[in-house]
Amino acid sequence: MSGNTTGKMFKITTFGSSHGTALGAVVDGCPAGLKLSKEDIQVELDKRRPGTSKITTSRGETDEVQILSGIFEGKTDGTPITAAVYNRDMDSSAYKALRNKPRPGHADYGWISKYGHYDYRGGGRASGRTTIGHVIGGAVAKKLLEKLNIKIIAHVTKVGSIEAQKVELTEIEKNIKNNSVRCADLEAAAKMEELILDLKQKGDSVGGIVETIVLNVPAGLGEPVFDKLDADIAKVLMGIGSVKGVEIGAGFEAAGLKGSQMNDEFYVDNNKIKTKTNKSGGILGGISDGMPIVTRMAVKPTPSISKVQETVDLEKMDDTEIEIKGRHDPCICPRVTSVAESSIAVVLADHLIRAGFINSCKL
Amino acid sequence: MSGNTTGKMFKITTFGSSHGTALGAVVDGCPAGLKLSKEDIQVELDKRRPGTSKITTSRGETDEVQILSGIFEGKTDGTPITAAVYNRDMDSSAYKALRNKPRPGHADYGWISKYGHYDYRGGGRASGRTTIGHVIGGAVAKKLLEKLNIKIIAHVTKVGSIEAQKVELTEIEKNIKNNSVRCADLEAAAKMEELILDLKQKGDSVGGIVETIVLNVPAGLGEPVFDKLDADIAKVLMGIGSVKGVEIGAGFEAAGLKGSQMNDEFYVDNNKIKTKTNKSGGILGGISDGMPIVTRMAVKPTPSISKVQETVDLEKMDDTEIEIKGRHDPCICPRVTSVAESSIAVVLADHLIRAGFINSCKL
Amino acid sequence: MSGNTTGKMFKITTFGSSHGTALGAVVDGCPAGLKLSKEDIQVELDKRRPGTSKITTSRGETDEVQILSGIFEGKTDGTPITAAVYNRDMDSSAYKALRNKPRPGHADYGWISKYGHYDYRGGGRASGRTTIGHVIGGAVAKKLLEKLNIKIIAHVTKVGSIEAQKVELTEIEKNIKNNSVRCADLEAAAKMEELILDLKQKGDSVGGIVETIVLNVPAGLGEPVFDKLDADIAKVLMGIGSVKGVEIGAGFEAAGLKGSQMNDEFYVDNNKIKTKTNKSGGILGGISDGMPIVTRMAVKPTPSISKVQETVDLEKMDDTEIEIKGRHDPCICPRVTSVAESSIAVVLADHLIRAGFINSCKL
Amino acid sequence: MSGNTTGKMFKITTFGSSHGTALGAVVDGCPAGLKLSKEDIQVELDKRRPGTSKITTSRGETDEVQILSGIFEGKTDGTPITAAVYNRDMDSSAYKALRNKPRPGHADYGWISKYGHYDYRGGGRASGRTTIGHVIGGAVAKKLLEKLNIKIIAHVTKVGSIEAQKVELTEIEKNIKNNSVRCADLEAAAKMEELILDLKQKGDSVGGIVETIVLNVPAGLGEPVFDKLDADIAKVLMGIGSVKGVEIGAGFEAAGLKGSQMNDEFYVDNNKIKTKTNKSGGILGGISDGMPIVTRMAVKPTPSISKVQETVDLEKMDDTEIEIKGRHDPCICPRVTSVAESSIAVVLADHLIRAGFINSCKL
Repeated sequence: MSGNTTGKMFKITTFGSSHGTALGAVVDGCPAGLKLSKEDIQVELDKRRPGTSKITTSRGETDEVQILSGIFEGKTDGTPITAAVYNRDMDSSAYKALRNKPRPGHADYGWISKYGHYDYRGGGRASGRTTIGHVIGGAVAKKLLEKLNIKIIAHVTKVGSIEAQKVELTEIEKNIKNNSVRCADLEAAAKMEELILDLKQKGDSVGGIVETIVLNVPAGLGEPVFDKLDADIAKVLMGIGSVKGVEIGAGFEAAGLKGSQMNDEFYVDNNKIKTKTNKSGGILGGISDGMPIVTRMAVKPTPSISKVQETVDLEKMDDTEIEIKGRHDPCICPRVTSVAESSIAVVLADHLIRAGFINSCKL
Repeated sequence: MSGNTTGKMFKITTFGSSHGTALGAVVDGCPAGLKLSKEDIQVELDKRRPGTSKITTSRGETDEVQILSGIFEGKTDGTPITAAVYNRDMDSSAYKALRNKPRPGHADYGWISKYGHYDYRGGGRASGRTTIGHVIGGAVAKKLLEKLNIKIIAHVTKVGSIEAQKVELTEIEKNIKNNSVRCADLEAAAKMEELILDLKQKGDSVGGIVETIVLNVPAGLGEPVFDKLDADIAKVLMGIGSVKGVEIGAGFEAAGLKGSQMNDEFYVDNNKIKTKTNKSGGILGGISDGMPIVTRMAVKPTPSISKVQETVDLEKMDDTEIEIKGRHDPCICPRVTSVAESSIAVVLADHLIRAGFINSCKL
Repeated sequence: MSGNTTGKMFKITTFGSSHGTALGAVVDGCPAGLKLSKEDIQVELDKRRPGTSKITTSRGETDEVQILSGIFEGKTDGTPITAAVYNRDMDSSAYKALRNKPRPGHADYGWISKYGHYDYRGGGRASGRTTIGHVIGGAVAKKLLEKLNIKIIAHVTKVGSIEAQKVELTEIEKNIKNNSVRCADLEAAAKMEELILDLKQKGDSVGGIVETIVLNVPAGLGEPVFDKLDADIAKVLMGIGSVKGVEIGAGFEAAGLKGSQMNDEFYVDNNKIKTKTNKSGGILGGISDGMPIVTRMAVKPTPSISKVQETVDLEKMDDTEIEIKGRHDPCICPRVTSVAESSIAVVLADHLIRAGFINSCKL
Repeated sequence: MSGNTTGKMFKITTFGSSHGTALGAVVDGCPAGLKLSKEDIQVELDKRRPGTSKITTSRGETDEVQILSGIFEGKTDGTPITAAVYNRDMDSSAYKALRNKPRPGHADYGWISKYGHYDYRGGGRASGRTTIGHVIGGAVAKKLLEKLNIKIIAHVTKVGSIEAQKVELTEIEKNIKNNSVRCADLEAAAKMEELILDLKQKGDSVGGIVETIVLNVPAGLGEPVFDKLDADIAKVLMGIGSVKGVEIGAGFEAAGLKGSQMNDEFYVDNNKIKTKTNKSGGILGGISDGMPIVTRMAVKPTPSISKVQETVDLEKMDDTEIEIKGRHDPCICPRVTSVAESSIAVVLADHLIRAGFINSCKL
């Protein structure tokens, strides 16, 4: 089924699976004249790549990108940009034991119901590796957003029961680079790291929350009534594997508030209109209002745990057990940050072109 | 901008605004042969209609629907179904005082940034009245879903700080009909009603949570990687005015869980595969797994409150105050339930056709 | 099935059938700030309306349009513009004899294969009356095109074996107003009228060719490789009922030419680049080059003729005969001109917005 | 701009240019379970490949395809199928002389108007090499169509002034394999070959007509009113480089006919409904009627001729001359046949899935 494309004017089509030949994306709708190099994409892929710290999976994936089309003399030329990462030869023999036994918490069972089969080798296209395509798309989108000085920062604000304290915006970017959890509260970060390592030891995993902040978005983005900016963001974020909830601004807290507490009052500051608070999270009625766009998403614990779990044997149609081996991230949150940034970047690039802030043909 | 259509094979295009001539929807992609009458749509609109209890706005809107096309001899004929509700002549003079003063918590400011104007008469297309289109689309979708015995129930689980106790599924439908808040925990419902009336008195409003449960969805719906079923549901729910958060299954609670707590283990029951728990909320990897689909959305307090609020005068570019008169719902949650049901129905109908569970041409 | 929408940024969704309640269109994606009145649409519908001369059908259709949404204080407001024409109460009893007998040359048989039924009352949605939706969309598009001084002229160049002589562009517009055939060669027009009346007398019909000329299209419209400007124009023109061929520039004549005859050489004229000839018809490689866009379409003779024809009885699955009564246009070409203009206008408006020549939000 | 995708349920996104790293396509929406090998695609690419006879360009392009994704254990797995052809290192120095001089009859000028630059090295993405993507998509589509026994045959019916005589359907397939022009009338084929070689000698080129015949299409394909089957076919055919006209059934001849000559009368043959003639070309009212779908397209002469031509110098904005060197096809018709077949195959696969003749998820 044809659900592998996102965007209307700035379109990303991704392809590939965990154990196929290659994974990648076609970016269609990027205007001509944008400086773009292989390194611009590689640097984003490296943020997503595992094996960079002791809390992520120890699988060594080099994930070197190759650009197949769309660049001419160092710039985008208005035609589709295709980039791919070839999978290295992998031993998928370890996965054979999983055949016909859908892993709890994974897409396997839905997949076989739908397609009549599933790729028992690491989930196939349902694997987290497919987010390589998201990140390729996001890398191009981010270069476009730079032209308008738009910046996206994703950071981890909760892991298990450990919640980070609020940190000044200026500190966030600096701090998240200094810890493997990408949490801006360094004290909490240390505790999170400890918790993750402990669960890794026990063959278990843990969930968390990732917050994203977007700065300098102009007012006026978003298309009522169905393609609202927050609706489109909710879609891409909920579409990231393991995400079970998305909120914007006050989010679920808004359910407990009174109107007089929730409404953001306007004021004029230096001939610019701002709001005193940002409970709305930068989007009102589906349209950006010029304030920072703040979203949070609930990330479930990695479903691949090494504890024995109950499942079914699809051939025998009987109950059985499953034990998942291999090296998996005990907490996917740190790596989700780059996918979240990429996903939001793609939505914004699309809406900026749709609304005419960026010309669709050339810069 | 052209964001007024949702769906790919079962498409809803809505139109109209709070003070224009009419509001409605075109439903394109409904197969031929579905029995559909004006009453089928009216009954759904009546659920959404205000003025039906003391806790909703006392504005009298009759909202009588007229079918303009798509029905032949009592059945859909495969061509676009258009239905419209004519606005009655309304006195919009009361709104004139609001001109050039964007209302806090409303779309006004984003709207003027985008379109160079805004409809100061009750928000125009940003008004809640536009959900008449959603409900028309949902009414048709629900008739289709009936063919597969799929049922959607939305109910209020929280208003302000009052949370409902969990109620058996079989009780929910019965109980919500017996109170104006559409809350299945009748004790909580009484308190919620009291709270709402108190805030109405004080010229304030309050938020809440609406939960939706979908029964009998077949396994295999949803298109990875971007058009996942939960992603599409998140989009339509977040796109409903006032919604600030969407979660599925365990939702934000998942962030605090371990993998061994979150994973739903499979078992065989009467030759059918089920999961022991439903933390995933019926969707895994973006594909339905046959379990009930459970979502919750955070609804902010109605932004139209009668307390004096600070805002700006867009002409003078200076600070000013605003006092919003008129009759508004102090809590929008009860009326959001029908919009939520409709929105999910439309997504499901679309995915059922896309996946071939329902033929796109004829029943 | 959901094929009733055209366009990507400037989208037209049409609805309605020959004997339903109303026909119309939703125009989504028109920027705010365009002056638009009911009269602007009515004047275009009047060009399409039959009964205005002795060579068209004598059915009296007043086709008065009503605007349901999208206009605020005399201008478009950026929200969907909906306009509808209510069908008058019609006697469809005459059609009952046609039940279960597909009319040769009509959509009836394909329709029943697809939808399990067909509207035997004048074709239902397959009727030419559905082009009311095209013309509503075209009327809005034309108002947008006016802003860029773009003009579309459709005229009849052939009816049966009578071919019009080439007429100067300046004369075309003037001349076509002076005859019921909308042919710019007035001598040929007289003969065409005579032929049409003769065939009307004999219960037969005749085909012809309609040429469209678009002036002042900027260079740079069209999106390779699939959404080329000529490809999109070919689609909308071929989609008009009765059209069996579409060509651009030299068209089918190009098949007989050498490259040295076909290529349009460039030259500089007053600091503007032009081509000496226009064999390409204003589009090269799918992108406009600034020269007039010239297309022609082959229109088949009206299939509703009063001669007895052979057909089948779908119930008895046996051969039978059919005699179509009622008043039909003996030559549809004159009335197709307004539909062709509208269809091209819609494509151009869409591409102008896509390419950023017109902002998608506001003028 | 994002025009590189075609299809709604069976979607092809193509990428790449004449002198970039690779060309290819992503096929999204092919159901799982279709046997597909590299060879299935290669065999179609070989039909398109030049250098296979003396009348095509003598450029040696091996065009070996590589499958990057979408195949699991020899079958499609429901995820995007990506295939690419790497360009060999080419010397593009010969093209440098063409810089800033748009070639008559080529996309260069429109391209620079749109994107601010053009790829002077053989047209870049406007090159005929981009049809590699079409053929990859077509190869997958054809495998799907085989399941329903649908067959597409494209052959050349005219080159310059030489017209082929009508040949029995059964003979066409056999005969076109026996000559380099792919013309089924072998006498005419010999003359066409002679003409093409003569013009090649003279540095000129020539146009022609390609006819396509599709057998065994079920009645009921096509979505009124905008996504009619003939409209979608017209779009893809007109979108092929060099095509200036498309007709179906009687096509432009219909303009000269009377209704009594044009209408195809129905009859019952062995409990199946057929038409005595096929003037409509298998599509009535935009929906297939079960008869063979017959289209013809006018192909202009290759614009790359070695004769000196007048053009402009874009930098100096002055008149100049251009002499195009290199090896070009003097008549592109024979090679267009495979692109035409592929393009129609993609449209049919899409409509078959849309209408439910083929399930979108699995075979």
